[in-house]
Amino acid sequence: MQKKYEALSEQVNLTRTLMAKSVIYKYLNRTNLICYSELTRLLGCEAFVKHENHNPTGSFKIRGALNFFHHMSREELEAGILVATRGNHGLAMAWAGQWFRVPCTVVVPENNNPEINRIIENYGAEVIVNGKDFYDAQSYCEELVDSAGYYYVRQGNEPEILNGLATVGLEILEDLPQVDVIICPIGGGAGCASLLKTVHAVNPAIEIIGVEPQNVPSFYASWKKGEIVTLDDAHTMADGLAARSVFHLPFAILKNTINDVVLLTEDEILEGMKMALTTTHNAAEAAGAVSLMAAYKIRDRLAGKKVVMIMSGGNLKMDDLRKAVSC
Amino acid sequence: MQKKYEALSEQVNLTRTLMAKSVIYKYLNRTNLICYSELTRLLGCEAFVKHENHNPTGSFKIRGALNFFHHMSREELEAGILVATRGNHGLAMAWAGQWFRVPCTVVVPENNNPEINRIIENYGAEVIVNGKDFYDAQSYCEELVDSAGYYYVRQGNEPEILNGLATVGLEILEDLPQVDVIICPIGGGAGCASLLKTVHAVNPAIEIIGVEPQNVPSFYASWKKGEIVTLDDAHTMADGLAARSVFHLPFAILKNTINDVVLLTEDEILEGMKMALTTTHNAAEAAGAVSLMAAYKIRDRLAGKKVVMIMSGGNLKMDDLRKAVSC
Repeated sequence: MQKKYEALSEQVNLTRTLMAKSVIYKYLNRTNLICYSELTRLLGCEAFVKHENHNPTGSFKIRGALNFFHHMSREELEAGILVATRGNHGLAMAWAGQWFRVPCTVVVPENNNPEINRIIENYGAEVIVNGKDFYDAQSYCEELVDSAGYYYVRQGNEPEILNGLATVGLEILEDLPQVDVIICPIGGGAGCASLLKTVHAVNPAIEIIGVEPQNVPSFYASWKKGEIVTLDDAHTMADGLAARSVFHLPFAILKNTINDVVLLTEDEILEGMKMALTTTHNAAEAAGAVSLMAAYKIRDRLAGKKVVMIMSGGNLKMDDLRKAVSC
Repeated sequence: MQKKYEALSEQVNLTRTLMAKSVIYKYLNRTNLICYSELTRLLGCEAFVKHENHNPTGSFKIRGALNFFHHMSREELEAGILVATRGNHGLAMAWAGQWFRVPCTVVVPENNNPEINRIIENYGAEVIVNGKDFYDAQSYCEELVDSAGYYYVRQGNEPEILNGLATVGLEILEDLPQVDVIICPIGGGAGCASLLKTVHAVNPAIEIIGVEPQNVPSFYASWKKGEIVTLDDAHTMADGLAARSVFHLPFAILKNTINDVVLLTEDEILEGMKMALTTTHNAAEAAGAVSLMAAYKIRDRLAGKKVVMIMSGGNLKMDDLRKAVSC
C-alpha cells in the first residue's frame, strides 16, 4: 500500500502548488509573516511567526479545502462531501463548501467542543456526532460512505488538499527566501508534508522540524519504525494534534526527508500558549503554539538562524486560555 | 484655527487614499474582514470584524505611518522624526521608519508599558521617557522640536497619515460594499475620521458610529459642544483611547458628519475583551475590542443589518487579559 502513496506523492509538487495559489487568492488574503523582537530575544534566533491563525475559520486548513473543491468534478460537488473532524478541518471544509455550494456532512466525536459544532452548522453543514475520538469518527465515515454515496474526504491523502496547504510554504519563501529553519506542528501530517515538498523544491537546505505531543507521538513512532504505527489512544490538550495515526500520503513524503521531530509534554504545550500571548499577543490554540515552544526547547541549535514558526490555528478553548494566562 | 483644519480636511480624500493604497501594499498584506457566526448570534446582526490587530506592529496605525514616510521629502527624512505615543503610533512609526531608513525619536509617558518601549527600541528608534501621560509627552515634543530640528509628527493632524489610515475603509468597501454600519473606536480621532471620509465618498448612507470610554469622552464632549474640549485627565484601561483631547483635523471632519458615539464604562470595556476572545478567538487590546461591546450595547438598533466592527489593535497587557478571562 505504501507504494501507492509514494506514487501519489508525485502529485504534490511545486507546479500544482503554484496553481493552487491562484485558486486560493480568489478567496483568501496572504497571511502575515511577522518578526517579533520579544520572541527573538527569548529564543536567540531571528524569530518569525507565520500567522495561519489569522485565516478565515482560524487555521491553515482553509487553503487545502478551497483547492480541493476547485478540483472536484461537477458530479462529485453535487453528491456532496463527508468529512471527519475535531474542528479545523471541518470548519474549513464547511466554510469553503459554501462558496462551491456543495452539501457538507461533518462527523465529529462525542466530546467535541460544542461551539465548534455550532459554527460548522452555521456554515450550512450537517453535523453528525459519532465515536469517542477522531479515529472513531473516521471509521464511522468509512461506514457511511459505503451506503450514502458521498465523496468521503480523507484529508491527509488528497493530493489537492496538500497542494493547497503547501501555499503556506510559497508565502514564506516569498517573504523570507533566506529562511534557515521552519518549525511546523504534525497532526495527520498533511500540513508539514506539503510544506516540506514546496520548500525543498526551492531549497533542500532549509531544515523542516516537526512537533508532536509526547502523549501522541504517532508520526514520531512511525518515523522511527519506518512504517505507520497506530496508537491506542490520543489524549492531549492540543486537539489539532490528537491523531492516533499519521495519514499515508504525508508519511510517504516525510519519512525520509524531515530533518527532526520535537516532542512536547502537556505542560510545555501550555507554556507555548503563554509564550504566544506574551511574545506575539496572539491567542493561539494549543496545537497552534507548539512551534514556539519547540523552538524554545531546541534554542541552542537555532542560535543566530532565521527561524519561521507556523502558528497553525487560533481556535482555542477558554479553559485552555485561562490555564495559560495563570501558569 | 478650526478654519485652517477645515481647509486641510480637503486633503483627506478618496483620490489620495487610493494613492496610499498602492504605497502601503508594498509593505503590508490586506487584513481580513471575517463574519463570525457566534458574534452574529450574540448581536442579532450580520457581524463582521475588520482585523487591524493582525497587522505588523499589531494595529491599524501602520497604514498611516507608511504613507506618511512615503510623502516626506529627502531633507525631512534625513533630519529624522519625533513622535509622542503610548504605544501603537510609536510602534508603527518606528517599524515603518526602518524601511525608509529615517531616525525616529519616540517620547513615551513615565508609566508606559516597558515591553512596548523595548519593542520600539528594537525597531531601531530612540525612546525618551517624559511626562505623566500622553498629553504631557506631546507637550515635551513641542519643546524638543524647537531646539532639535526634528520633524514632529502630530499624528492626527497629518493629512497623509489619515489618507493611509483610510485604506481600512477601502478594504471594507471592497469586501462588503453593501455594509450598513461601521463601528470604530475614537482616541485622537484620526482612524475614525479618515474611515468616514473614504466610506462617505462612496456611500454617504453608511452609518459611522464612534466609541469612547465613558471616563475619557474627549471627542464626545467636543462634538456636543461644537468645539474642542480638553479634559483634565484620561484614566481608562483602553490605553489607545486615553486622549485628553481629539486632534483638530479629525474633529473638523467628524463634527458634522459622524452618526453617533457610544460611551462605554470600564467594566464594559473589559467585557468587550472577553467578547472578542469568546466570539472571535482574538486577543484584542482593550481599545481594540470596544467596537464589539458598543455593538452589543446598541444591538436593538443594529438588528438584521450588516455591521463591521473595527478591531483596531492587539497589543494587550497580560494583566488585562487575566481580568478578561476571569470576568
